[in-house]
Amino acid sequence: MKCHIIDALPQPGGQLAELYPKKPIFDIPGYPSVNAGELVDNLMEQIKQFQPGFTLGETAVSYTKADDEWFEVITNKGTVHRAKAIAIAGGLGTFEPRKPALENIADYEEKGLEYFVKEPEHFRNKKVVIAGGGDSALDWSIFLSNVASEVTLIHRRNEFRGALDSVEKVQDLKNQGKIKLITPAEVTAIKGDGKVEAITVAPDGQDPYDMETDYFIPLFGLTPKLGEIGNWGLNIEKNAIVVNNALDYQTNIDGIYAIGDINTYPGKLKLILCGFHEATLMCQSVYNRLNPGKKFVLKYTTVSGVDGFDGSRKEAEKAVVKKID
Amino acid sequence: MKCHIIDALPQPGGQLAELYPKKPIFDIPGYPSVNAGELVDNLMEQIKQFQPGFTLGETAVSYTKADDEWFEVITNKGTVHRAKAIAIAGGLGTFEPRKPALENIADYEEKGLEYFVKEPEHFRNKKVVIAGGGDSALDWSIFLSNVASEVTLIHRRNEFRGALDSVEKVQDLKNQGKIKLITPAEVTAIKGDGKVEAITVAPDGQDPYDMETDYFIPLFGLTPKLGEIGNWGLNIEKNAIVVNNALDYQTNIDGIYAIGDINTYPGKLKLILCGFHEATLMCQSVYNRLNPGKKFVLKYTTVSGVDGFDGSRKEAEKAVVKKID
Ligand SMILES: Cc1cc2nc3c(=O)[nH]c(=O)nc-3n(C[C@H](O)[C@H](O)[C@H](O)COP(=O)(O)OP(=O)(O)OC[C@H]3O[C@@H](n4cnc5c(N)ncnc54)[C@H](O)[C@@H]3O)c2cc1C
Ligand SMILES: Cc1cc2nc3c(=O)[nH]c(=O)nc-3n(C[C@H](O)[C@H](O)[C@H](O)COP(=O)(O)OP(=O)(O)OC[C@H]3O[C@@H](n4cnc5c(N)ncnc54)[C@H](O)[C@@H]3O)c2cc1C
Repeated sequence: MKCHIIDALPQPGGQLAELYPKKPIFDIPGYPSVNAGELVDNLMEQIKQFQPGFTLGETAVSYTKADDEWFEVITNKGTVHRAKAIAIAGGLGTFEPRKPALENIADYEEKGLEYFVKEPEHFRNKKVVIAGGGDSALDWSIFLSNVASEVTLIHRRNEFRGALDSVEKVQDLKNQGKIKLITPAEVTAIKGDGKVEAITVAPDGQDPYDMETDYFIPLFGLTPKLGEIGNWGLNIEKNAIVVNNALDYQTNIDGIYAIGDINTYPGKLKLILCGFHEATLMCQSVYNRLNPGKKFVLKYTTVSGVDGFDGSRKEAEKAVVKKID
Repeated sequence: MKCHIIDALPQPGGQLAELYPKKPIFDIPGYPSVNAGELVDNLMEQIKQFQPGFTLGETAVSYTKADDEWFEVITNKGTVHRAKAIAIAGGLGTFEPRKPALENIADYEEKGLEYFVKEPEHFRNKKVVIAGGGDSALDWSIFLSNVASEVTLIHRRNEFRGALDSVEKVQDLKNQGKIKLITPAEVTAIKGDGKVEAITVAPDGQDPYDMETDYFIPLFGLTPKLGEIGNWGLNIEKNAIVVNNALDYQTNIDGIYAIGDINTYPGKLKLILCGFHEATLMCQSVYNRLNPGKKFVLKYTTVSGVDGFDGSRKEAEKAVVKKID
């Protein structure tokens, strides 16, 4: 079977990649400790040979049933994916950036106003203003200080909250003049004709003033939203999709499954290792769906090896039968 | 909660440790490839801080309900363990050694006749006869050739079946005179007064003869048997224990769970990753059992850290709140 992954975020890995890539997880079975980002890297390495497709930075918004067999999933950018089964592994939902409450903000989105840094090269030799006081604001300020012509970091407090490393690094770069820091201050307006040309900065207790910039990147965190999937006719309880955990994690819609944090059932635990199991039983069920009448025979990877779609093969060293004389 | 492990085998790790410790597994999530023995080592490292108890080399044969709260599990050696919940993770059952069909064999068991090498030091400077043609026979012949005063390997064929390394190593040791090889031949009798003193060897097409030895170790593989657990009054289907997979993998007996290969339910897959999930939901259920009325609150290891019973603590580096000036 082939699998295609649609994710609203610019990279795969969900919460692990987006929220805590540098933090250790202690309850992945077999790993006394593993950094979330490293776990994602290992999983990507593990699935590589199966050549899954990736559509990143797009949100699945609706689906239709093209015919008896085929679903079509449509993204917010109009991309259409055909598949015989859908597994919703939407976690807490689409991570939507927390947006600052500024007038006409929608007019500037993707026109100099960015909520994610998808492609750092985009900012080469440009003037960039970042707003925020957490790890994302710190880390991207550090990173872009080597790329952009000018990086300004604006935060409504003097205190930043993040990894000690990152806070100290920003302090250094500020001392070296590589990052301009404006605190405590807020951005109160975006200006520009059809694209961001300047922002208005209001430092605490001082008069607001305008500042030229090519980009404004408010990094105020993400809030998860179930979003459009909430309107698919799925059985929803407390923001999660009810599934049949007594069999295959299928939803009330035949052929649509829900696995991982996004599903709910009696005793559900939102843990990574549970998602692995749910995904596995879902796959078995999809196999039966796609191959009606054919008996699914479980083969151990150790015994039968693993054949990749790229022609690769992994296998245990075979035992030999050999004479000793 | 504290956990105590009873295993019939001399080491923890079940099939992975006993049947394929040196073979790679390709479907442990997060490990593109991991040797079974290495996975067991990592799991042992991961649970160390919770100081589980181990009773190895003993088979759980019966249980009683001491009172409303406490179970007692009794092993074949008479050891009694008290616990408020039992999780049967018996895999395919107790691994019972395949025994050669020899007269009075039971009289010699643990009196020079051994089916496992539990403690190699036991054999120091003794005469040892090993029978068998697979990896165990090869590997223990190699190992004991450095410990015992004499190692004889007897196999009914000239061909051995095992890792190339092991076969070649035995060939070397035979050439050096460190292992005595008798093939094709069978052991047809054990002799001795109250303990093994000699065996009878019958080489193909030749007259049988007696050979002095302190130990006889037939390594003909293991066959799993559900054993006494089959008489506990559990709901059994096709040699597996039926559990409530819609909730917590509990059996028909309140307080007794079954997880891993030994259980069955619609869609069951005998995979390691499934056992991890089942064990986790079982633990949640046991927690609720032991703490009636107390709400179970899931805490992420990454966020809350992990406290060991040995006083150790693992935790992610905390974010700091720090001023930049
Ligand atoms: C700080 C923190 C620490 C944690 N620590 C642990 C721990 O120690 N152990 C543990 O087991 N778990 C831990 N967790 C929980 C763990 O991260 C989750 O259980 C896991 O990420 C769930 O995986 P998932 O694939 O179900 O969902 P997610 O990781 O949430 O991924 C869902 C993905 O779906 C995307 N998406 C949603 N809707 C759409 C849509 N309509 N279209 C396109 N894409 C969409 C999202 O963008 C997201 O990338 C922790 C979580 C956090 C936040
Ligand atoms: C060659 C081979 C290759 C495999 N490859 C893979 C693979 O690639 N991927 C995968 O996911 N799975 C694989 N498996 C399956 C995997 O090993 C099992 O799913 C896993 O071992 C099940 O774990 P368990 O703890 O349930 O049972 P087991 O590993 O069978 O352990 C059960 C333990 O319980 C003990 N026991 C039983 N009854 C009693 C009793 N009454 N008293 C005391 N002790 C008792 C036994 O001695 C044993 O040690 C493979 C299996 C084999 C044999």
